[in-house]
Amino acid sequence: MKDPIRITYRLSCPKEEAEARAEAILLEQTVELPRAAVRNRFVERNILGKIESIQQVDEGLSEVIMNQPLAATGNNSAQLLNVLFGNVSLQPDVMLYDVELPEAAAQFLPGPALGTKGVRQLVGAEERPMTMTALKPMGLKPSELADLATSFVESGIDIIKDDHGLADHDFCPYMDRVAYVQEAVVKANERTGMNAIYAPNVIGSLMEMLQQISFAAEVGVKAIMFEPMLTGLPMMAEIASAGPRMAILGHPAFGGATRMAPELMNGKLFRWYGADAAIFPNFGGRFTYTEDECHRLAQAVREPMTGFKTCLPVPAGGIAFDRVDEVLDFYGRDVILLMGGSLYIAGEDMPARAKEFTDRVRAKFA
Amino acid sequence: MKDPIRITYRLSCPKEEAEARAEAILLEQTVELPRAAVRNRFVERNILGKIESIQQVDEGLSEVIMNQPLAATGNNSAQLLNVLFGNVSLQPDVMLYDVELPEAAAQFLPGPALGTKGVRQLVGAEERPMTMTALKPMGLKPSELADLATSFVESGIDIIKDDHGLADHDFCPYMDRVAYVQEAVVKANERTGMNAIYAPNVIGSLMEMLQQISFAAEVGVKAIMFEPMLTGLPMMAEIASAGPRMAILGHPAFGGATRMAPELMNGKLFRWYGADAAIFPNFGGRFTYTEDECHRLAQAVREPMTGFKTCLPVPAGGIAFDRVDEVLDFYGRDVILLMGGSLYIAGEDMPARAKEFTDRVRAKFA
Repeated sequence: MKDPIRITYRLSCPKEEAEARAEAILLEQTVELPRAAVRNRFVERNILGKIESIQQVDEGLSEVIMNQPLAATGNNSAQLLNVLFGNVSLQPDVMLYDVELPEAAAQFLPGPALGTKGVRQLVGAEERPMTMTALKPMGLKPSELADLATSFVESGIDIIKDDHGLADHDFCPYMDRVAYVQEAVVKANERTGMNAIYAPNVIGSLMEMLQQISFAAEVGVKAIMFEPMLTGLPMMAEIASAGPRMAILGHPAFGGATRMAPELMNGKLFRWYGADAAIFPNFGGRFTYTEDECHRLAQAVREPMTGFKTCLPVPAGGIAFDRVDEVLDFYGRDVILLMGGSLYIAGEDMPARAKEFTDRVRAKFA
Repeated sequence: MKDPIRITYRLSCPKEEAEARAEAILLEQTVELPRAAVRNRFVERNILGKIESIQQVDEGLSEVIMNQPLAATGNNSAQLLNVLFGNVSLQPDVMLYDVELPEAAAQFLPGPALGTKGVRQLVGAEERPMTMTALKPMGLKPSELADLATSFVESGIDIIKDDHGLADHDFCPYMDRVAYVQEAVVKANERTGMNAIYAPNVIGSLMEMLQQISFAAEVGVKAIMFEPMLTGLPMMAEIASAGPRMAILGHPAFGGATRMAPELMNGKLFRWYGADAAIFPNFGGRFTYTEDECHRLAQAVREPMTGFKTCLPVPAGGIAFDRVDEVLDFYGRDVILLMGGSLYIAGEDMPARAKEFTDRVRAKFA
C-alpha cells in the first residue's frame, strides 16, 4: 500500500470477536459497505485498507493495528478525521488509541507554524521553561483584565492568555479587551524589559473568528488561543497555514477525551493541525489524565517528525504552587507551565505569588 | 436569574460526593476559579450560576440540574458549547445529559432554515415519510456515482446524499462529482416526474467548504450534508443562518457520543445549530443507540420550540430491509428513512430492491 496511515484502535470485546470487529471497522471507515458489496477493482486496490495485527492486551481488551491508504483522505485535513474516527467514534467499544502518519501527510497538515523555537524567540526565553497564566474570571471589564495583565507581566509571566470562556460578551467586548490588554502588556514590557505576549481567545462562528484574528494582528498581538475540538481542528489547520504569523495555543475544551487517547487528541492531533503549544490537564490536578498519558503526550508533541515543527506541552488544570519543581523535573526545559487558579486564590498577594512562581521556573535549570 | 440555561449532568460518583462535584462543575464552566477567588460583584451577580437540584438516580449515579446565565454565552454559538461542556467534557465522571434553552437563545442560534415543511416541499412529499440513500463507495468516479444516482431516482428515492467519506479526492473531485450527479438527478426527475434532491458532502477547511457550498448552489443543488462534530457546530450554524437557502443534513461522524446523551448531541444540538434533518444510528443496527434514546431524539428534533423550526429525524446505520415497517411504526410520518448497505448488498438487484423500499415507505400511511 502506498502511504499507509497506521491506526491503532483498542476494542473492548471478547478475544474471539476481535477479528470480526476489526474487519467491520476497516470497512466502516472508508467504503462503509460490507466487503461483498465492494465490486469495483479500483476501490479494492486503492481504497480498501488492511489489518496489520490483532493482539489481546488485557482481559476483554484487544489492540488492532490497521493500515488505511492516505489516498482515502483526499489530502484533506477534515477527511483525515473521518478516516480515523468518523463513524466508529459512535461505537462505544472502540477507542482511537494511536495514529502514525506517512510523511506525505505533511503536504496537507500544517503542523506548528512557529514551533518551539519560534515561541521561545517571541518571549525571549532561549532555553528555560516558560510560564503562562490566564485572565479571568469571565465578567471582568477590559480595563480590569488589562490591570491583571500588567501585574502578571511585572511578576515575570511570559504568556498571558484569555480564559477560554472569554468570548465577545456585552460586558467585555472582544475588540475592547484585546486593545486594552495588548496595550497594557506592551507598556509593561517596555517598563520591565520583559517580552511577555498576550494570547486572546478566538471563538465564535467562522466569520467572527476571522475578524477576531485580523483585529488581533492589527493591534500587534503575537499569539492566539483556539479550542479546536469545539470550533474544528480543520479550522485551526487553516489558520496555522494561511493566517497571520502568530503562535497558536490549542486548548482542549469540548474534547470529551475519553474515547481518544489523550496523548493522541491533545498531543499528536493538536500538533499536526497547527498548535504551537498544546494545553492539557496535568496529572494529579482536577482532571484525570494519568502520569503515563502526560509523559506520552509531551513526547508526542516534542519528538522529531519530518515536515512538522515541534510543539510545546503546556500542563495545566490545577497545578498546585508547591508542585512546580516536580512538574519541571517531569517535563524538562521545553515546556510552558500554566498556572491560573493557584495564583488567583492568593487574592491581594497574587502579584507576589506570581513573582515567586516565575522566579522558581527561571531558576530551575539556570 | 435572567434567561437561565437549564443544564442536566449525570455524575458517576458516590452520593455523598455529588454536592461538591456539582459545585465544582458550576464554577468550572464559567469563572473557572474557586468560589473564594471570585471577588467581583458583577461576576457574582451576573455570571455565577446556581444548582437547582441534585438527585441520586442510581447506585453511584447522580443527576445534577444547574442554571447558568445565558449572558455567559455572549450570544455566541461556540461559547454556548463551552458553557455546556467545555472543560468538564475532559472529566470522565461527567455526562452532559440534557439542556433546556431560554427563548432568548433563538436570537443567536439559527435552528433549521427550512425545517420539516421546507424539506417536504423540496421533495414534493406533503405528508408521507421520505427515503434517503447514500452514494458509495469511496473510490468510484463521478460518472459512476451519477449512474447510481439515476438509478436511485428511478427507484423512487427522495434524497440521494454522498457518503460522508466522499471528499475532494483526486479520483473523484468534488466539482466534477457534484456537477455530474446533480445533472443526473435533474434529468432523471424530468423523465420520471420525481422531485428527488442530491445532497453533496461538504467537508474540508473553512475556505474549501465555502467554495464547495457556493459551487453547489451555482449548479442548482438544494441540500448539503455536513459533519458538524468534525468541522464544527458553529460552522453549521453560520451556514444555516447566512448561507444559500439549502436543506442541511447533519451527520454524526466524529461525535464520539458516549459522553453526551445521543438525543442531546444528535438531536437538540443538531437542530439548534441549523440541521434540517438529523442523521443518527437507529437502534438495533450496527451502532448502539437504544430504542429509548432514539425515541427521545426524534422527540427532541420534532417537538414545538419557540424560534426554532422542526427538524426531521433520519434513522440510519444498518436499517435492515425487513425492518422498514417496524421503523415507520416507531417514528411515524415525519421521518426520512436512510438505507445504504442494505440496498448495495443486493448487487445487480439493487434498483429493484430500492424500488421495493420506496414503495413500502410510500404505501405505509397512504
